[in-house]
Amino acid sequence: MRLPQGFRAAGLPAGIKRTGAPDLGLVVLDEPGRAAALFTKNLLVGAHVTVCRDHLARSGGLVRALLVNSGNANCATGDAGVQDARDTAAAVAELVGCPPHEVLVMSTGVIGARLPKDRVVTALPSLVEALRPDGGEDFARAILTTDTGVKTAERECGDARVAGVAKGSGMIHPDMATMLGYLFTDARLADDPRAQLAAANARSFQRLTVDGDTSPNDTVLLWSSERAGLVPRLDDALESTSRELARAIARDGEGASRLVTVRVSGAPDEDAAARVGRVIATSPLVKTAVAGRDPNWGRILSAAGRAGVAFDPTRALVKVGATVVFADGRPHPANEAAAADHLANEAEVLLSVDLAVGNAAADVWTCDFTAEYVAINADYRT
Amino acid sequence: MRLPQGFRAAGLPAGIKRTGAPDLGLVVLDEPGRAAALFTKNLLVGAHVTVCRDHLARSGGLVRALLVNSGNANCATGDAGVQDARDTAAAVAELVGCPPHEVLVMSTGVIGARLPKDRVVTALPSLVEALRPDGGEDFARAILTTDTGVKTAERECGDARVAGVAKGSGMIHPDMATMLGYLFTDARLADDPRAQLAAANARSFQRLTVDGDTSPNDTVLLWSSERAGLVPRLDDALESTSRELARAIARDGEGASRLVTVRVSGAPDEDAAARVGRVIATSPLVKTAVAGRDPNWGRILSAAGRAGVAFDPTRALVKVGATVVFADGRPHPANEAAAADHLANEAEVLLSVDLAVGNAAADVWTCDFTAEYVAINADYRT
Repeated sequence: MRLPQGFRAAGLPAGIKRTGAPDLGLVVLDEPGRAAALFTKNLLVGAHVTVCRDHLARSGGLVRALLVNSGNANCATGDAGVQDARDTAAAVAELVGCPPHEVLVMSTGVIGARLPKDRVVTALPSLVEALRPDGGEDFARAILTTDTGVKTAERECGDARVAGVAKGSGMIHPDMATMLGYLFTDARLADDPRAQLAAANARSFQRLTVDGDTSPNDTVLLWSSERAGLVPRLDDALESTSRELARAIARDGEGASRLVTVRVSGAPDEDAAARVGRVIATSPLVKTAVAGRDPNWGRILSAAGRAGVAFDPTRALVKVGATVVFADGRPHPANEAAAADHLANEAEVLLSVDLAVGNAAADVWTCDFTAEYVAINADYRT
Repeated sequence: MRLPQGFRAAGLPAGIKRTGAPDLGLVVLDEPGRAAALFTKNLLVGAHVTVCRDHLARSGGLVRALLVNSGNANCATGDAGVQDARDTAAAVAELVGCPPHEVLVMSTGVIGARLPKDRVVTALPSLVEALRPDGGEDFARAILTTDTGVKTAERECGDARVAGVAKGSGMIHPDMATMLGYLFTDARLADDPRAQLAAANARSFQRLTVDGDTSPNDTVLLWSSERAGLVPRLDDALESTSRELARAIARDGEGASRLVTVRVSGAPDEDAAARVGRVIATSPLVKTAVAGRDPNWGRILSAAGRAGVAFDPTRALVKVGATVVFADGRPHPANEAAAADHLANEAEVLLSVDLAVGNAAADVWTCDFTAEYVAINADYRT
């Protein structure tokens, strides 16, 4: 991936992960750039959420450097954990040459263990030395946890570009669970970049669920050098980049064998469509049915029926791929073979429900639910 | 199990299930008895919900007979399915000698296939002939689907008794998903038996979740011959019987190896405690951690933190069994071995969270989440 003008990045192993995999990433701008962030809504928050909120408030939203570690969430570590986060930010600030509050630090990984701060600080000089304009991929690799691969997305946007990086595979849900997402750009941001980010987020990361759980560390950051100035359709590029990253996370759901798009149409409004979509996309019965290649419209319709959105199930339409499996109040068993083929042969499957109430629609992304998911999550800490 | 005075029951295989297992059960009173029922809140409802609501309204809540089939849910079968349900009720009424609206019929099993009505009607004479005061166990067996065993519970209550029967193992959630529950008694019911049943239900079946999904056919029925007259503490016996049945369903969750009690205390009110408990009990990450014998307080606290109940996680207390694993804002890793022992060695495990906000508490029951669950639900229809 190519970073926008002004950004340099790097990633390397600092010994936080026992495996020796890369676990520390840094992104730096030569001049402070405007930024905005959205954080988890969980009451339990990682130390970085506290520190980043404070730093963004004190800097007026100006950021010089972003340090991200994987392998340790620095969460439920008390006041000492917050101090650890502040100390690593201060160490970056000294090396980069800026006030500490222009440095953001973020952590993802296991909850409840103290951050091995000394290893972070020891690795920082090498990390700063490794910074390069083409270091985005190294950064993207260093922030992964149970992900099976890097997640990046890029868009040209007039003279500017948007480069997106994300991590996350389990614990993904609206409110951005165990997910870190970054939108780097050189385009001029809106006067209220937080609102701009929230708009991009609403139809992307907020439409993503892997298992209904959420994490204390979820963060999405929009950050610009603004060197390319004002460009048209930046909002579209931000949303489209975010959607590509969100879909990449769903595709890489822990143990997943299928990316599942749940498309709800005929809803009274878009929020209602998204709500129904999320209930379907979170249902273990729907997700295990996809894993079993079973076009189980009954489970889809049952999930829709408990979402709290009024509709008449006897008028609803359920499709798997392009195939109608339920309409006019009854199943269409003759079509189930074609629907099962779609589930068996497509890496991206589509489950559609038309509620026949209104004209609004929404897509929600998830993945299927396999025995592998259970194995990963039963054994993760041991 | 011993049925209360006036009840006779039977169960036999009618050929609805391909396996030849019992799939048709009948319970009859010699005189109509007062009854009340609670039905699923899903918008998608099985035919029996429509028919039972109608019959209870027309009979003024008087019931002579209850016919239950397993193996077919008679759901999403349109007007024809409702007519099938009415026809089987009429056939029972003719054999028993009562108006059709004094007969309740209920179905559980696969959604979307027409009920094989002829097999039901053909089996009815043998079923009526098999009715016995000690036939409760046969009835209990005939209503099972993926359950691994019958679920019954009994209480003496003065001169009266309460005999409970339930089925359900997957798709269990508040609002009584894919669950049938029966409370048979000979005690005099309250003037409003539906409110009496709702009270017993609130702290029993409503506190049960296996996978967060709900079914279109869930029904709980309270039905009395009232031959034993007014007895003290009937409400306690109804609630206690319902709790035993709810726990039996959680213990028999699809693929479950552990019954999990989630106990939330220190909540501002009981509803808030139950809400936090349900979010913890529904979390796939918590449930897979129990399957992996991992005292993962981080997942428990994260789930509590997104339940929508305000509390300060740094003041919360998390215990596994009797062992504190999180307190004073940080984990207690020295205790984790004892906590892991509890998970490894107890068939019933206890996860407790004290929110340190108020004095209300609630228990919620669930089970762990194993690879076996996925296998069962990926392969159920195929």
